[in-house]
Amino acid sequence: MLPHEIEEKSFEIIDEEAGNHGFGLDEWKIVRRMIHTSADFEYIDMVRIHPKAIEEGVRAIQSGCAIVTDTNMARVGIRKDNLAPFGCTVSCLMTDPEVGKEAKEKGLTRAHVAAEKGAALVENGIYAVGNAPTALLHLLDLIESGAAKPALVVGLPVGFVNAAESKEALIKTDIPYISNLSRKGGSNVAVSVINALALIARERT
Amino acid sequence: MLPHEIEEKSFEIIDEEAGNHGFGLDEWKIVRRMIHTSADFEYIDMVRIHPKAIEEGVRAIQSGCAIVTDTNMARVGIRKDNLAPFGCTVSCLMTDPEVGKEAKEKGLTRAHVAAEKGAALVENGIYAVGNAPTALLHLLDLIESGAAKPALVVGLPVGFVNAAESKEALIKTDIPYISNLSRKGGSNVAVSVINALALIARERT
Repeated sequence: MLPHEIEEKSFEIIDEEAGNHGFGLDEWKIVRRMIHTSADFEYIDMVRIHPKAIEEGVRAIQSGCAIVTDTNMARVGIRKDNLAPFGCTVSCLMTDPEVGKEAKEKGLTRAHVAAEKGAALVENGIYAVGNAPTALLHLLDLIESGAAKPALVVGLPVGFVNAAESKEALIKTDIPYISNLSRKGGSNVAVSVINALALIARERT
Repeated sequence: MLPHEIEEKSFEIIDEEAGNHGFGLDEWKIVRRMIHTSADFEYIDMVRIHPKAIEEGVRAIQSGCAIVTDTNMARVGIRKDNLAPFGCTVSCLMTDPEVGKEAKEKGLTRAHVAAEKGAALVENGIYAVGNAPTALLHLLDLIESGAAKPALVVGLPVGFVNAAESKEALIKTDIPYISNLSRKGGSNVAVSVINALALIARERT
């Protein structure tokens, strides 16, 4: 079987096992890809998608937006071939030397400083968090103060300290978000959301 | 909280919630990090560790082995700071131009060709599969034919077509492996295993 055949077959299996999930057509394209990446059907119950999230995310991609991730794993995992026609950029500042220097000087985490510098890049763009609750919490502060204006926040940090709490805080806002109510998440799942949005953007072009 | 404090606190929570898991001390260092990365306690029941896997993996790292991954996400996610003192290399051949060319010429998947070329690099090294069952199945063929001799196979492909089956095949062999009996897995989980082994290698040095 070729890769695209494996993907099609996988989606058939997911559709069959998911049954009546209640998601709209485009929402399901996102959630199904999250399940495809994680083999975890819990995403059906956990995912929360802001009513404007897909529309805003697709529009941002079609306008060639900046996409910032909180890990280099996510940066590398995002498929560039579906974003390239729109001129989108994908970057992660975690290993940026300036970020490391500033974090050391100010006694802050790299995630904190990277969130601040990254937030400045994603005006009308997409900020994707797949790892650090710190990054998401700081981004929410920056949005509240008006310092950051992303079109969409993909908020999927994973873990046992503040991951679920940071996503609860995101979901309480009126920022377009794709997130989940759980400790689960991860760079791979955040990547799957961006890849799904890019495919929707291409389908609509 | 600083990153290392968050990690310590996370491990405390995992220890507490995991209860009586039955793993040995070093095994638990691996499995706990898989849970830390995925927030998924199912790994406690799913993981299978060959009796010689940790010993062989640690010995390979301490001897400065090659580590080959099936995705660039995994390559990027593996922490180099704990491997650098041993001189280990980390590589992924999926986007290698030669691999792309050969795959096209022979009508094979890139995963297949990358597995073949990667297998040649990991004599006494570590092959980590976090994505493609094709890569793991082909690697098993190469090991059976004597063409590949890794010290350890980290076999954690994820998905709905052949992922579970490829891991069942791995676990039936006598190759030192760290794997799981499930559709679940992923580059992030494969990374967590390598990172845990590198830490054990450093502790023992």
